[in-house]
Amino acid sequence: MKFGTIRKNDRDVVVAGVGHDTALVLEDVMDDAPKTMLEVIAGGEAMRRRIAAAVAGREGTPMDGLHWLPPVPRPGKVLCVALNNSANKDRIMSGPKHPAMFVKASSSLIGHGQPIRLRAEFGRVHPEPELAVIIGKAGSDIAPEDAMEHVFGYSIINDLTSPTMRGEDTFHYRAIHPKEGDASTIEYVDTWVSYPGRYKCADTFGPIGPWVVAKEAVADPHDLTVRCEHQGELVTEDNTTNLFYKIRDVVSFASTYMALEPGDIISMGTALKAAGATRGKAVQNIDLNQLGGPISVSISELGTLSNPVEWR
Amino acid sequence: MKFGTIRKNDRDVVVAGVGHDTALVLEDVMDDAPKTMLEVIAGGEAMRRRIAAAVAGREGTPMDGLHWLPPVPRPGKVLCVALNNSANKDRIMSGPKHPAMFVKASSSLIGHGQPIRLRAEFGRVHPEPELAVIIGKAGSDIAPEDAMEHVFGYSIINDLTSPTMRGEDTFHYRAIHPKEGDASTIEYVDTWVSYPGRYKCADTFGPIGPWVVAKEAVADPHDLTVRCEHQGELVTEDNTTNLFYKIRDVVSFASTYMALEPGDIISMGTALKAAGATRGKAVQNIDLNQLGGPISVSISELGTLSNPVEWR
Repeated sequence: MKFGTIRKNDRDVVVAGVGHDTALVLEDVMDDAPKTMLEVIAGGEAMRRRIAAAVAGREGTPMDGLHWLPPVPRPGKVLCVALNNSANKDRIMSGPKHPAMFVKASSSLIGHGQPIRLRAEFGRVHPEPELAVIIGKAGSDIAPEDAMEHVFGYSIINDLTSPTMRGEDTFHYRAIHPKEGDASTIEYVDTWVSYPGRYKCADTFGPIGPWVVAKEAVADPHDLTVRCEHQGELVTEDNTTNLFYKIRDVVSFASTYMALEPGDIISMGTALKAAGATRGKAVQNIDLNQLGGPISVSISELGTLSNPVEWR
Repeated sequence: MKFGTIRKNDRDVVVAGVGHDTALVLEDVMDDAPKTMLEVIAGGEAMRRRIAAAVAGREGTPMDGLHWLPPVPRPGKVLCVALNNSANKDRIMSGPKHPAMFVKASSSLIGHGQPIRLRAEFGRVHPEPELAVIIGKAGSDIAPEDAMEHVFGYSIINDLTSPTMRGEDTFHYRAIHPKEGDASTIEYVDTWVSYPGRYKCADTFGPIGPWVVAKEAVADPHDLTVRCEHQGELVTEDNTTNLFYKIRDVVSFASTYMALEPGDIISMGTALKAAGATRGKAVQNIDLNQLGGPISVSISELGTLSNPVEWR
């Protein structure tokens, strides 16, 4: 089963995917319909059985005519795993031996079909097609073998990134550190640090959706084709099998530092292998600020997330 | 006037500060009391007048006996300004000519008196005493001269930071960039990048509160003394006059990239000048993971935020 959130008559309502790319508003066909995606998640299997019974045999509204919101409109947090593709390995001179994460502002998320809104001063902005994991069950210190119990399902996220702003918001500076051997005094250590407030979290930098597909509908989340198309041209064709750290490891690791909560999102890392037709090119060549949209990410079994570009 | 949020009988309720360090639960003394800090903010001046009338002449409960939550328990976003103290200037070899920002996970926030919970594997964890600005009115592209209209008030935040995790989660790598002069092919560029998911956003890394002081009660937010004490010893004594980028400039700049919403928090940057008694020492010497707590931040006119340390 798959679920989404749309805006209808100035309210956010939950839809289920039915038939061939149509969506059915749950409150139109159910008494006690869940009002939010968090209620769908909290309701567990019993809820999904009730929804399945209510939508069985019905047709919905074509997806294209709907105003899509992020499936979970304002998740508690969006954790993103950096440089998590086996193809990155050759390019890393030094780095952690565990998943490296950053937080993307929930306010940066937009739904399928909604415009990415750019400005000249943002500089380069490129797509990063990623598998998103939607947390279903709260937990801290989750063991890897229990991690999949905490997953509700999967979605598609386009982790838009501005390398121009990343460059601008990097400091080369002398950090204050306690002195080696005398922790009560300080010394200065030459350091680089970068701050992702703008380059990852600007408004509209997080297209996500349209669907959350419940995990039981996905045979193997580490065998999904990820394709990114720009203006109809294939840019990347990769597979989630190439994720270096797997879902169970990332969920477990993250939960050691940050309690996971229902509706939290973990973005698994960029699918970056260049498609055959675009050898020598990469997602980084798709400067949406110069080239405009639309930009689409498709993941097998999950659908297609597509967004136009506007300038403001 | 000043307001806070506490947990009482398993519910979050709003309190007003009255008399000498006592807090009054608004629903105990008002019909139609605001249920959340966001309702206090949304109610504007009329709400504050009603509250003032309801609490006039009353005494409340001593602060120490209460279970404090963050004043806005789960703000939409927490933006933090990096390296924003005039004393940083000498230490920066290269960096942006505007405020550099990162997002701190709202889930990392804890209230006054609640324990900072650490683990050996976090490595060094030090305090960063900061003035927090609480947004009152939504806005994008706010002009500097209008910025103060969007501020509801001020609080105290301790932007806990682990330089150990910062070091571990820094990559030295070859980033993919479009080739100079041929944007359709790529080249590799030697780059440093750091990811603040763990080092800034771990659970309990954001003590904040106890109060939000409405802005009309603060004569000049850029003339506030900021003091940080560790186990009763003064560590820093600084003043918000030393903030390099001022509130109006930061609010305006941030709003160009991220729409601001009521309850959003902007943490203005670390007060870091060593106190006279601790010359040669800095907040970075206070490794809470080795030394334990309590750690306190006091800002004149705003109160004192103090938190113990526990290990988990």
